[in-house]
Amino acid sequence: MAVALLALAAPAHADGLVDNVNGYTLEGKGTVQRFTGLLIDRQGKVARLLTGREKRPTVALDYKLDAGGKTLLPGLIDAHGHVMQLGLQALSLDLSDTKSLAEAQEKLRRWAAERPNLRWITGGGWNQEQWSLGRMPTAADLDAAVPDRPVWLMRVDGHAGLANTAALQRAGITAKTPQPVGGRIALAAGKPTGLFVDAATDLVARVVPPPQPRDYDLAFARAQEMLLAGGITAVADMGTSVADWNVIRRAGDAGRLSVRIMSYAAGIEPMIAIAGTAPTPWLYDGRLKMAGVKLFADGALGSRGAWLKADYADAPRERGLQLLDDAKLRNLMSRAAMDGFQVAVHAIGDAANAQVLGAIDELAETYKGDRRWRIEHAQIVDPADLPRFGRNGIVASMQPVHATSDRLMAEARLGPARLGGAYAWRTMLDNKVPLAFGSDFPVERPDAFAGLAAAVSREDANGQPAGGWRPDQKLRFTEALAAFTTGAAYAGFAEDRIGSLTAGHFADFILIDRDPFEATPAAIRGTQVIETWIGGKRNVLRKQ
Amino acid sequence: MAVALLALAAPAHADGLVDNVNGYTLEGKGTVQRFTGLLIDRQGKVARLLTGREKRPTVALDYKLDAGGKTLLPGLIDAHGHVMQLGLQALSLDLSDTKSLAEAQEKLRRWAAERPNLRWITGGGWNQEQWSLGRMPTAADLDAAVPDRPVWLMRVDGHAGLANTAALQRAGITAKTPQPVGGRIALAAGKPTGLFVDAATDLVARVVPPPQPRDYDLAFARAQEMLLAGGITAVADMGTSVADWNVIRRAGDAGRLSVRIMSYAAGIEPMIAIAGTAPTPWLYDGRLKMAGVKLFADGALGSRGAWLKADYADAPRERGLQLLDDAKLRNLMSRAAMDGFQVAVHAIGDAANAQVLGAIDELAETYKGDRRWRIEHAQIVDPADLPRFGRNGIVASMQPVHATSDRLMAEARLGPARLGGAYAWRTMLDNKVPLAFGSDFPVERPDAFAGLAAAVSREDANGQPAGGWRPDQKLRFTEALAAFTTGAAYAGFAEDRIGSLTAGHFADFILIDRDPFEATPAAIRGTQVIETWIGGKRNVLRKQ
Repeated sequence: MAVALLALAAPAHADGLVDNVNGYTLEGKGTVQRFTGLLIDRQGKVARLLTGREKRPTVALDYKLDAGGKTLLPGLIDAHGHVMQLGLQALSLDLSDTKSLAEAQEKLRRWAAERPNLRWITGGGWNQEQWSLGRMPTAADLDAAVPDRPVWLMRVDGHAGLANTAALQRAGITAKTPQPVGGRIALAAGKPTGLFVDAATDLVARVVPPPQPRDYDLAFARAQEMLLAGGITAVADMGTSVADWNVIRRAGDAGRLSVRIMSYAAGIEPMIAIAGTAPTPWLYDGRLKMAGVKLFADGALGSRGAWLKADYADAPRERGLQLLDDAKLRNLMSRAAMDGFQVAVHAIGDAANAQVLGAIDELAETYKGDRRWRIEHAQIVDPADLPRFGRNGIVASMQPVHATSDRLMAEARLGPARLGGAYAWRTMLDNKVPLAFGSDFPVERPDAFAGLAAAVSREDANGQPAGGWRPDQKLRFTEALAAFTTGAAYAGFAEDRIGSLTAGHFADFILIDRDPFEATPAAIRGTQVIETWIGGKRNVLRKQ
Repeated sequence: MAVALLALAAPAHADGLVDNVNGYTLEGKGTVQRFTGLLIDRQGKVARLLTGREKRPTVALDYKLDAGGKTLLPGLIDAHGHVMQLGLQALSLDLSDTKSLAEAQEKLRRWAAERPNLRWITGGGWNQEQWSLGRMPTAADLDAAVPDRPVWLMRVDGHAGLANTAALQRAGITAKTPQPVGGRIALAAGKPTGLFVDAATDLVARVVPPPQPRDYDLAFARAQEMLLAGGITAVADMGTSVADWNVIRRAGDAGRLSVRIMSYAAGIEPMIAIAGTAPTPWLYDGRLKMAGVKLFADGALGSRGAWLKADYADAPRERGLQLLDDAKLRNLMSRAAMDGFQVAVHAIGDAANAQVLGAIDELAETYKGDRRWRIEHAQIVDPADLPRFGRNGIVASMQPVHATSDRLMAEARLGPARLGGAYAWRTMLDNKVPLAFGSDFPVERPDAFAGLAAAVSREDANGQPAGGWRPDQKLRFTEALAAFTTGAAYAGFAEDRIGSLTAGHFADFILIDRDPFEATPAAIRGTQVIETWIGGKRNVLRKQ
């Protein structure tokens, strides 16, 4: 009997082969390695890269895929995103790009049809001027698209909302509903039209149910789909709440966690509530780990919350928001570091960056060893402070697309003379600072190819400004790709498992429709992901 | 190469053997099965029971244990306990049983020495009268036992606290500390003695650190040790908070979760925050599952919170606390049941039991199928309501030791005429109600043998009252054991995996020092657990 069992037992290291690829991977030092075949073991890890016409294994393989010469890259890693926010935002309809009522109705109809489990359809962005409608839209306009469920859509300015008939019924709105103070229920022939202005919007908004567990689960699933569609196989989730964590664990427990998540808790309290006295181990076959904590030193540039060393150029006597005094910042960082948690601090303004650099200088004396203090964004740095990033093992976690989105605003907020250390990723590399790139989704789309294009061109999607903004900070493609792969893995203490396709690392990779090493920035930006593999398994991509 | 791998691969079903046992297990219907050997597979499950001199396997075994004829029972399952409370209480020193200062000092010294990671030693229960001390104790008395860490111990009445010198220092108490309003810092020769009376206790209590993650982790570890020492291999945790859940998951993630936990969330909110839209799957190789929710219909008998149909006999015009009106109770139960969560409702008084029975009558029309509505405690039931337990698949989750602890109080609260349905486990079985037994630890000790003894004798540890209280409710030993094994498994939808030693079930079992089938109630109560095995693995027991 024992012999029979032995014969039945499967070999532990049978393989799969993805063959006939135009394969690239980067090694830790940034050197490019080319290959034509990828051998994957049964643990979903890279067994071996095959080059040129190197002989393929003759043993029986579990599976074999001929990629037809397509380009294969390591899975992209987004070093800074907000997974649950991405998913929740995706549950809300955005009509800001619609040019007519008919187009909006069609978008609404399709949106609702694709989301049969969504109990309320909510969203906004509509503008009857942009639609050239010549009147305000009504409940009947929405009913024509979605009659079966309540719909509630805010106008682009947030000062009006439009309900369909089902929503009016849920809210109990009738011709007899009194007009509220500070708002107006639009009426036609004495009956509510579906439009609510200012304070009257509360009459409907208050009956929209808050997100329920199934909404969070849906949102998380949707976020994963969006990431996989963009070829992103791992993310650093910057600010995981206890509620977020439970949603992610539910997915992990049910085998629905695909994307690898390096989690940074949304503060010390959730960090210790979740992980206790040490970072968690890697869970779910390397798909989830709470690595550390995310803290905030300041706000953002757009709202003049970024903390600056001198006054805003466009707002005299304003210098933004210092969120923590020096002692408090050090104490929070210390509380995390003493138990071996990694610390990631949001710093956008030059004063905030200087404060965090100073805190790290002090803490590094106590907390020796490989700490990888992360500064998130590092957007506006005093040029005098740039060399300080090269000390104490600091990781600069930056978002290339922000530079192209923010440049006009940054020039307005600071004036051209104070931008010598703005979005200065070239200087970071020159100073030997480990660089990790991300998108800050959902602030920007979770699109690493847009990030790669911005990193090498300093131009936006329209090619503006031609030749690039502050072009001395451009990266070579290889350097930019490293920041989205090996660099982002290093930033999460994960370079032993992801980021490069090396024997023993997870077989996380993508097949794409072009060779970005040979492409213009515009072509890089247009790259289409054909397949996304994680842990040696192909993920089915839903059309976006 | 492939052949070599095949030869190296281990057979999937190699076995271990625990042999030469006086083995008992119960089948679902309560019939006793005897065996002399237990064959365990590599998944930690029962491969086969071996009887009499049946031939033992001749293939090589991974391990073999000769139990020397000891009695082997299925692991005991406590159907109602509070795991984190058990552990946290165990981190606090109880001096209420000490008869002299020297004894208290020795207990304190040993306690602190056994807990080197505890930063503060806290506890209470001391009484200088019981010590015949003739004076109040001082900081120096505590320093003699524990000089290295702060110690803070409340007097038995809660109106005074005693600090050692380290605690005085942490609290910053000196001869100059002003006397607070409403309290007194005891002084001798102008200096604080260490004793604080009434409001003055706050001066020290406020510097005692609240439990930290490491304290919770310690508490959970301690709770598991206590359960294993008592031969308890699985528990229903009645009222798991989100914080509790994270502690348990940390243990699971780190491979430190031994005892199987069937978790019932501490309300609807934590239930959905943790488990979302459905009970979790079994996690950590069958060691954790959130199965449902725990709700409360009333309070407890001691504090006259149990909700009664008629006035308390010892408190006219009081009928206890109805915690939820009928609609609210049904809504909460429905909210859980609609997503397939199991519902367990605490009901102690006869009015509370009637209310829950009524709610189940209504809900069972909507929620068909196998729901196993649990009524927790079911202590004081109107005899007219007892047959209603036999409908709708209700499980009676009862605690035999409560009957012996509460009987004098129950007689005082209700008078003898209203106890016809009190702790009526015999009647439950006669009515074919599935019965699950637990201890309600830490309210009672997590000691299933005490529960078994109480169930068969209706006598307390001192044999009182001789012949048993309301002895018509006594069970046979087999019936009581079933309620602590197969019945408790059934109550948690786990009878397919634990509770009986059947092929394919987990090999959760205990070796004990006597045969309780052949023992008197007093001897059953004195049973010592020698080894506790879970999933085919022996757990090292720490001495209590």
